[in-house]
Amino acid sequence: MSEQITALLQRAQAAKPLLAALDEGQRNRLLEAMAAALLLHKDTIIAANEKDLVNARGRISEVMLDRLRLDESRIAGMAQGLLDVVALKSPLGMVESEVKRPNGLVIRKVRVPVGVIAIIYESRPNVTSDAAALCLKSGNVCVLRGGSDAILSNTAIAEALRAGLVAADGPADAVLLVEDTTHAGAGQLMEARGLVDLLIPRGGPGLIRAVVDGARGVPVIETGTGICHIYVDAEADLDMAASILYNAKTSRPSVCNAAEVCLVHAGVAERFLPMAAGVLAPQVELRLDERAKRIIDGTPAGPDDFDTEYNDFILAVGVVDSTPAAIEHINTHSTGHSDAIITANAATAAAFTAAVDSAAVYVNASTRFTDGGEFGLGCEMGISTQKIGARGPMGLYELTSYKYVVQGNGQVR
Amino acid sequence: MSEQITALLQRAQAAKPLLAALDEGQRNRLLEAMAAALLLHKDTIIAANEKDLVNARGRISEVMLDRLRLDESRIAGMAQGLLDVVALKSPLGMVESEVKRPNGLVIRKVRVPVGVIAIIYESRPNVTSDAAALCLKSGNVCVLRGGSDAILSNTAIAEALRAGLVAADGPADAVLLVEDTTHAGAGQLMEARGLVDLLIPRGGPGLIRAVVDGARGVPVIETGTGICHIYVDAEADLDMAASILYNAKTSRPSVCNAAEVCLVHAGVAERFLPMAAGVLAPQVELRLDERAKRIIDGTPAGPDDFDTEYNDFILAVGVVDSTPAAIEHINTHSTGHSDAIITANAATAAAFTAAVDSAAVYVNASTRFTDGGEFGLGCEMGISTQKIGARGPMGLYELTSYKYVVQGNGQVR
Repeated sequence: MSEQITALLQRAQAAKPLLAALDEGQRNRLLEAMAAALLLHKDTIIAANEKDLVNARGRISEVMLDRLRLDESRIAGMAQGLLDVVALKSPLGMVESEVKRPNGLVIRKVRVPVGVIAIIYESRPNVTSDAAALCLKSGNVCVLRGGSDAILSNTAIAEALRAGLVAADGPADAVLLVEDTTHAGAGQLMEARGLVDLLIPRGGPGLIRAVVDGARGVPVIETGTGICHIYVDAEADLDMAASILYNAKTSRPSVCNAAEVCLVHAGVAERFLPMAAGVLAPQVELRLDERAKRIIDGTPAGPDDFDTEYNDFILAVGVVDSTPAAIEHINTHSTGHSDAIITANAATAAAFTAAVDSAAVYVNASTRFTDGGEFGLGCEMGISTQKIGARGPMGLYELTSYKYVVQGNGQVR
Repeated sequence: MSEQITALLQRAQAAKPLLAALDEGQRNRLLEAMAAALLLHKDTIIAANEKDLVNARGRISEVMLDRLRLDESRIAGMAQGLLDVVALKSPLGMVESEVKRPNGLVIRKVRVPVGVIAIIYESRPNVTSDAAALCLKSGNVCVLRGGSDAILSNTAIAEALRAGLVAADGPADAVLLVEDTTHAGAGQLMEARGLVDLLIPRGGPGLIRAVVDGARGVPVIETGTGICHIYVDAEADLDMAASILYNAKTSRPSVCNAAEVCLVHAGVAERFLPMAAGVLAPQVELRLDERAKRIIDGTPAGPDDFDTEYNDFILAVGVVDSTPAAIEHINTHSTGHSDAIITANAATAAAFTAAVDSAAVYVNASTRFTDGGEFGLGCEMGISTQKIGARGPMGLYELTSYKYVVQGNGQVR
């Protein structure tokens, strides 16, 4: 590990007890000071962002340039985001269980910060303040490693947040930015055993895969890869199914909870597929398996079409013979993010929700609801698709751990 | 990955839905059948174990040979262990939270199995049946990879357990044993992304380190490394402190919750250290820092003595100036397993339990209580020293995950 990263992570570790010692009121005052500092330093941030935009122009798409762009209104939005987190209840200190053992020991399970959370993310600079806010509220030090396109913006934002912390007599090192935006910089975070308590990648499948595969002895929570399915059962309300499918595919195709695959029970395929084509075409390109192709027009599905996160106006469509066949297809091809059944039969729905091994399993609703805000968590660091640590939307609770506090009066074993 | 391991893990994945579909009564009948099968096949198991013992003689210590040895009484103990797990309540299906959102969606958070849990362990063959029982009760398929010394015993035990599963019409592949006991065999489990849902190493620090460092894209829960501290505060009841220290160090020095380090507040060091030496000597070798050395006799501590898990009758002893100094020492040198303060001052105790970043933090009790049974979990797969996934003793609850089941009536976003 480079001396620079080691030194940064040692500062992060040193800030851990300072941050853990704060109470909720103190953490909230720090968040307010960070929000005020973003507004105070907005000209510096916008100037830095303009340099990033100049450097990036021609190298990244217009869509990506727009994601990178900051203006007064977006900075005001980031500041408001910090204030929104103030209003959330932190789980820190919550006693999850308390038992008195026969020997008189009282064992309490208490929520505590994880410690140092490192976040590796891509271009959008607002992640810098969002992630810092969620980490601070949950008592964690954050180490932020954004993409190279946004490095000047991220540096200016992090400096503003740190200035806010200092202004409110808080630990500036609660928010740290890694200046090395090379792969080597990210790689060092992935190997920082004992210095990084949790590593969260936020971004596209390539980034996530690189972090999950590259981590060495550092716990990772994998987020945000979504090949989500809508299964239309033989007993579905077909109008509802068409409405849900349309929403899940088209309302925001670039996000991880958008549907990528529709499976239709053979018993209703002849009726439903023309309805689906009617609502989706021509906006959505349909990639059809052989049986669907016999019923409606579209592109024949290739070998990868049922294993692709399009993040685009493309939908793979297949016909299955039964709910068990749909379940088996989903458990084989889903990324374990969000999958839905549309059915009026409660027993079929129960079999589906029991057997489908995904973070969120829906009955008669769009997969688009898998989101911290929509689930009532008030915020979100990402959507975990793994089963260890956190699963589904990660709010403040999912950014904490627990310890056992054991009170005795001399017990020995 | 070798074809053999891939095929084995694919069988494990195929068994996942079969096991997940069972109810608690069915899982209990399988455990009973597994217990009966162990007794039925005891002669085969003992014969296999005798061959292991012959092969191992001269290569491993007498203590290790004794750990490896199976007889009728130990097999009866293993069978009883399976029946004890029947009596535990499984967390599967538990609804941890249920919210109705303003849009009418009902979101339930439900406990589910993790899936395929691989366990890499060392010589004791009883782990084979213990781990299988805990995995089965928590709805998980287990893939067991024991040490080479016990391979014939483990194979015979696993075959008996699988025969029991078949006899009770259960999925035999709920229990699978990896026959390759080379490092390469373990390495393949560490890299089986998508085929192993959770990897748990059980054994000495070398094994645990190798698994944690070797895992690639497979979540690991690190268990069982314990450099545990007893801090004797200025306001401690010194008789209680001596009793707790004696227990924590000597009752079973080979286990991870035994104390390895004693820190004493300077204000009571002159009184306490002679008391400690009185109860511990000559059984325990004391490794003393300079300040302790001025007060009592013992070996001068070397540079590694405050960072060593002795698992032996050795104790490092140091003098500190304050509780904050003790906390800082512990947070720097502890493995995050179990640490204790002995004090009559409630405020000092509260500061200690808040600041010490370990799985179990004790006030006026021995660290030896960090154990699934002692914590009331009824069983234990190991003691996690990490903060993600599980922390402290891992019982059935810690071997499960959750999913969100979302019931709608046509909601779109």
